[in-house]
Amino acid sequence: MSTRTGKQTIVLGSPPVVIGGAAIVGKKEGDGPLARFFDQIIDDEYFGEKSFEKAESRLLRDTLVKTLEKCGKSASNVHFIISGDLQNQCTAASYAFRDVQVPFLGIYGACSTMAESLAIGAVLIDAGAAEMTACITSSHFCSAEKQFRYPLEFGSQRTPTAQWTVTGAGCILLEKQGNGPGITHLTCGTVIDMGIKDANNMGGAMAPAACDTILRHLEDTGRSLDYYDLVLTGDLGSFGRSMLVKLLRDNGVDPGDRYNDCGCMIFDLERQDVVCGGSGCGCSAAVLSTYVLELMNQRKLNKVLFVATGALLSPTWIQQGDSIPSIAHAVSLENTP
Amino acid sequence: MSTRTGKQTIVLGSPPVVIGGAAIVGKKEGDGPLARFFDQIIDDEYFGEKSFEKAESRLLRDTLVKTLEKCGKSASNVHFIISGDLQNQCTAASYAFRDVQVPFLGIYGACSTMAESLAIGAVLIDAGAAEMTACITSSHFCSAEKQFRYPLEFGSQRTPTAQWTVTGAGCILLEKQGNGPGITHLTCGTVIDMGIKDANNMGGAMAPAACDTILRHLEDTGRSLDYYDLVLTGDLGSFGRSMLVKLLRDNGVDPGDRYNDCGCMIFDLERQDVVCGGSGCGCSAAVLSTYVLELMNQRKLNKVLFVATGALLSPTWIQQGDSIPSIAHAVSLENTP
Repeated sequence: MSTRTGKQTIVLGSPPVVIGGAAIVGKKEGDGPLARFFDQIIDDEYFGEKSFEKAESRLLRDTLVKTLEKCGKSASNVHFIISGDLQNQCTAASYAFRDVQVPFLGIYGACSTMAESLAIGAVLIDAGAAEMTACITSSHFCSAEKQFRYPLEFGSQRTPTAQWTVTGAGCILLEKQGNGPGITHLTCGTVIDMGIKDANNMGGAMAPAACDTILRHLEDTGRSLDYYDLVLTGDLGSFGRSMLVKLLRDNGVDPGDRYNDCGCMIFDLERQDVVCGGSGCGCSAAVLSTYVLELMNQRKLNKVLFVATGALLSPTWIQQGDSIPSIAHAVSLENTP
Repeated sequence: MSTRTGKQTIVLGSPPVVIGGAAIVGKKEGDGPLARFFDQIIDDEYFGEKSFEKAESRLLRDTLVKTLEKCGKSASNVHFIISGDLQNQCTAASYAFRDVQVPFLGIYGACSTMAESLAIGAVLIDAGAAEMTACITSSHFCSAEKQFRYPLEFGSQRTPTAQWTVTGAGCILLEKQGNGPGITHLTCGTVIDMGIKDANNMGGAMAPAACDTILRHLEDTGRSLDYYDLVLTGDLGSFGRSMLVKLLRDNGVDPGDRYNDCGCMIFDLERQDVVCGGSGCGCSAAVLSTYVLELMNQRKLNKVLFVATGALLSPTWIQQGDSIPSIAHAVSLENTP
């Protein structure tokens, strides 16, 4: 059973356990600083399929299979798949899991999807409604570029606040009990829109949502940020990250060096020509389900606040002159002492 | 606390209560057989806004406000809004709730969205993670046509299995305790794809998913269909409805006259030129949150199995020659004796 504390935070009575995770990423991500943590690196952006969309769908499916393998589980152990992606109508996910006979909940939270998936997956387990849930999401640079921006062949120039959509999928398997860090608290965010209309500045649009959710989490739990070994947003990029640091400081919270952003970690911003860093649902999912989980399992990290952020815009609404609503959900992952 | 029974069904320990609902619909729906049940009928498809997308967003927002009013609640009582729609990136919902300071979970289940929303909303309450949740979804004929099919001005001809996207939004407010029917069981479906590639035959594509979920529900609970006063799919339309009846009979289950489909109920199929009937997330949401809820509150119906069905396709995947994955989630609503 869960309880509520403060205005928005859920305390999970029996913290569902992260029993394992896996990520499969593309070539550029495999050339980045976290390469050795990923389970598989795909050189071909088509992943042997006939379209970018199908390639992304295969990324998801293979990542689920890889995660189950690593955990010694089979799909029949999983009571729910909670998944979503950036494709219109979230089709990477729905097509990926049509051959997997597991109840499916489709979600949409843009780059906040991994945190939303973990929140729903954890509550299902804490409620007794499931014993094991798979939380999984993806993005693909090529399917995202053609859908949200321009055809790849057009070779559009990037603005100084642009981010680079990660090609990759990350999956985390939650179970009622087992070995691994537990999900102890959830602070789900509200939709926040500060009026930013530049679709190439999603970090700037999302930073206020991240700030709001982090402040809310701290107030609700009575914790300070130094309770955590790592506070991890995904994916504000370097511009949004510095904006969030400023916003937190304005509110009397100094994140210090325990704060980082998945979009700034997955690529080498100096070397890899990704402007402000990574974005896309797959970015924070891949970083959390491999790098962070490995460090937690090695007890190099024991308390992590994972704050995935989503820019809930669409090209249609931006073309109609509207601004960018954003959201952030915080998930507290803690090793038992 | 919830428990599981059989392969896919959740039994809610303390059934969350449907304390109220509301629906706002368009002119054509207001000319249909259920008109008197709807809370508001909008003659202008722009709803005073500058685009169809914004009109749909306003439909959602106003429907939430109307529901809260009817229940004597305010947004500050609501712990979660669980919402989604058919617009790319589910923007009707994210833009609708940017001014409402309530934690937001975006979901995507095409026309199964209302059932998915009720499932997540009910589990959140049963887990103790929320005391009140708002389950709400919408569709809009004009925003759907231009996105999924052709510009309205093109005046395309409809095929014999086509359905008509409902303009409307429906909202249900769930609370831990109160007066109204309770949500007693949930049977969430798996993604099923029988290979149908005709995007104008979504009823045919979804009928096998509805059949699978209904059979699973009956097997898991040990119930027969005549346990229910009404079994309600949404939205198979007349073609999908007859296909489901055949599929159920092939499996030894005769739905008899207790079965109907929201898409066949919201329009007069003889008179209103909608081919096989209504579709879109808003269809089953509007029928459930007004007509069905009123009959349950009057105890003319006491046990209802609500089976919302979704065709999880996108134009992109169909253009690439792929088929239509479908899903159905069943929600059992029961009055206390």
